[in-house]
Parts: sequence; structure tokens; C-alpha cells
Amino acid sequence: MNLEIIKQQIDFIKEIDKLKYIQRKTKLFNSDRHENDAEHSWHLSMMVLVLAEHANAPIDILKVLKMVLIHDIVEIDAGDTFLFDTKKNHINTEEELKAAKRIFGKLPEKQAKEFITIWEEFEAFETPEAKFARSIDHFEPMLQNASNKGGTWAEFNVPYDTVVEKKQVMKEGTETVWNYAKGLLDECVEEGVLKK
Amino acid sequence: MNLEIIKQQIDFIKEIDKLKYIQRKTKLFNSDRHENDAEHSWHLSMMVLVLAEHANAPIDILKVLKMVLIHDIVEIDAGDTFLFDTKKNHINTEEELKAAKRIFGKLPEKQAKEFITIWEEFEAFETPEAKFARSIDHFEPMLQNASNKGGTWAEFNVPYDTVVEKKQVMKEGTETVWNYAKGLLDECVEEGVLKK
Repeated sequence: MNLEIIKQQIDFIKEIDKLKYIQRKTKLFNSDRHENDAEHSWHLSMMVLVLAEHANAPIDILKVLKMVLIHDIVEIDAGDTFLFDTKKNHINTEEELKAAKRIFGKLPEKQAKEFITIWEEFEAFETPEAKFARSIDHFEPMLQNASNKGGTWAEFNVPYDTVVEKKQVMKEGTETVWNYAKGLLDECVEEGVLKK
Repeated sequence: MNLEIIKQQIDFIKEIDKLKYIQRKTKLFNSDRHENDAEHSWHLSMMVLVLAEHANAPIDILKVLKMVLIHDIVEIDAGDTFLFDTKKNHINTEEELKAAKRIFGKLPEKQAKEFITIWEEFEAFETPEAKFARSIDHFEPMLQNASNKGGTWAEFNVPYDTVVEKKQVMKEGTETVWNYAKGLLDECVEEGVLKK
């Protein structure tokens, strides 16, 4: 056993426990309790397994799982970014890149590189895997808001058009799920929990 | 789009949100806050990605990830089982099988069968994937207890010999990680947080 290798790996495993403290704006289904990033990442992984057949293009499911499992780890240092925040830029920030280097950098060099590369691929939104992963990341809070009387849409006064504008990138990963999501938004408007 | 298929899948995705409410006996690293099953499943998935190279036999990582992502979903109905519980039997119970059929049964038939089969393979502890997944499931709470002044070992008066007896199955999945874990237990004894 190479003790140095395993020690570095355990160090990383302990460090990422902090993801369980990063609170998202959205709440659990039919609930007042905020979701944290670790729960969110688990739920996205399950959604990837369940919805993979609806991806627009053939995808490497293992790679998509890696993406959704690690995509928010940078928030341990950089904090949660909220899609409907009007002040903060959501593009892959310097702060997030620094976080990726610090946190993944705890791993043995080869693994650190692999994780940073996958995270960068996710952020770049170019490959079928990144597009599908991002679509699922967009879809989960929509389901949560719909089950929570509008959730963050109601809380932050986000109208239908803005939701569609921000969420329609989903169709690049999966038109099928986007079509379902649009139907869900229409239902939310009918129910009065999303304003047109 | 086959609307019936996607509706069944969304139904399942909503149902498993309940895993976030299933509290484990163990606590987060250096913390008084109990871990829930969703956070635990995410952390195991990360540990699988990081520690896969230490598996005794070649493993299909995607299959191991599926196992750890879904392994506790039956606890939504059957509740958390605690390894050091002296009253409850830990073998794959009728109650858990019923839970698997109800919860995975929400999915389209082919997917339901796939998930139940993977869960049964995990429970049977025979394949290299099941053995590695189980080893990681055993390892995470050891790391947590070691960081929490003995954690559940101290809380429930579990001595060193019992910990070794219950945990040594880990070596069937990964001798390397088990060897590291044994060293960790020795350190815990030295520090006085685990009684010999």
C-alpha cells in the first residue's frame, strides 16, 4: 500500500464533507427545509440514472455521473450561486477555479487533474455529457418549486418569461425533458404559483 | 415523447426525496449534526470514485456507483439499520424487499427491474462490485467516528473487538483500505476514543 496516496485521498474525502453545509436557495419537495449541495448532488445522480434515455445524443453515463457528483464542490469555497440572482455573474468564475484547484488539489496529482478536467468540461457546456448534466441541474429546482407553491420563483418574484429564458438551455441536453418542463411551467401559471 | 414513461420517472424522482429525511446514527465530520441517507449516499459515491483503484478485483465503477446511490432507498419505508444494534437483524429483510418493490416499482417496468436487481446484488455481497461498495459503506462511518471522538462507538459503548469483528468484511472488497482502517482503529485506541 502506498500510504501517501491513500492519505491524500482520505484528506480529500474529509474536506468535501463541507458540501453538506452549503445551503441552496431551493427547498426539499413539499417542504420548508432548504436543500444542501450534497443532497442535491445525490438527487441529480439519481435523475441522471433514471432520465438518461431522454438525452438528445448518446452519452457516457459514468462521465455524467462524475460531473453531477462533483459539480458543486467548488461551492465549499465559492458559495452557492443562484440562477435568478441579478447581481452575481454565473459564468465559471476565477473564484471557482481557485476553489477547484485547492480542493481537488488535495488528491494525488493524476486524480486531481482528472476531476478538474471533468469539472471544466461540465462548466464549458459543449459536450453531450455536459449538456445533459446541466439540463438535469436545471430541472431539479423546477420540480421542487412546482411542488412548493412556486418556491424561489414566488420568493424572488421571478416571472414565467425569465424562467423560460434561463431554463431553455435545457433543450440542448434533452428536448424530451425540456418539453415536459415547459408543460410543468404552464401548469404552474394556471395554478397561479408562477406569474406570466 | 412517451408521456406515461416520463411521468412514472418523475413520480419516482419525487418519492426518493424522502431519503433526505432518513437520519443515520453517525454524524458529519467534526460535528454534532447527524448525517442523512442522501448525504451519505453522495459521500459514498465520491469515495468510490476516489478509492476505486484499491479494489481487490477489477470492478465496473458505473455499477458500483449505482449500488451506493440506491442502496439505502429502501430505508424510506424500512428505516435506518444500525450496524451495532444488538436487537435488529441486519440481513436483507422482508420489510426491505417490500420497500424495494414499492419504491422502485414506481419506475417503468424495465427500469424497476434493473434497480431491484442491482440492489439485490449489493445485498448479496458476492460480486466484486457488491463487495467493494459494501466496504466503502463500512468505511465512511469509521472515518466519521474517528473524527468525532469515537462517535457511535463511544455513544453505544462498542469496544475495539466488536468494531473489528463487524468491519473486517471490508477486506473482501479492498484489503488496502481495510489495512488503512485498521491503523485508524489503533490510533483511536491510543487516543482513548475506542476501548480495547
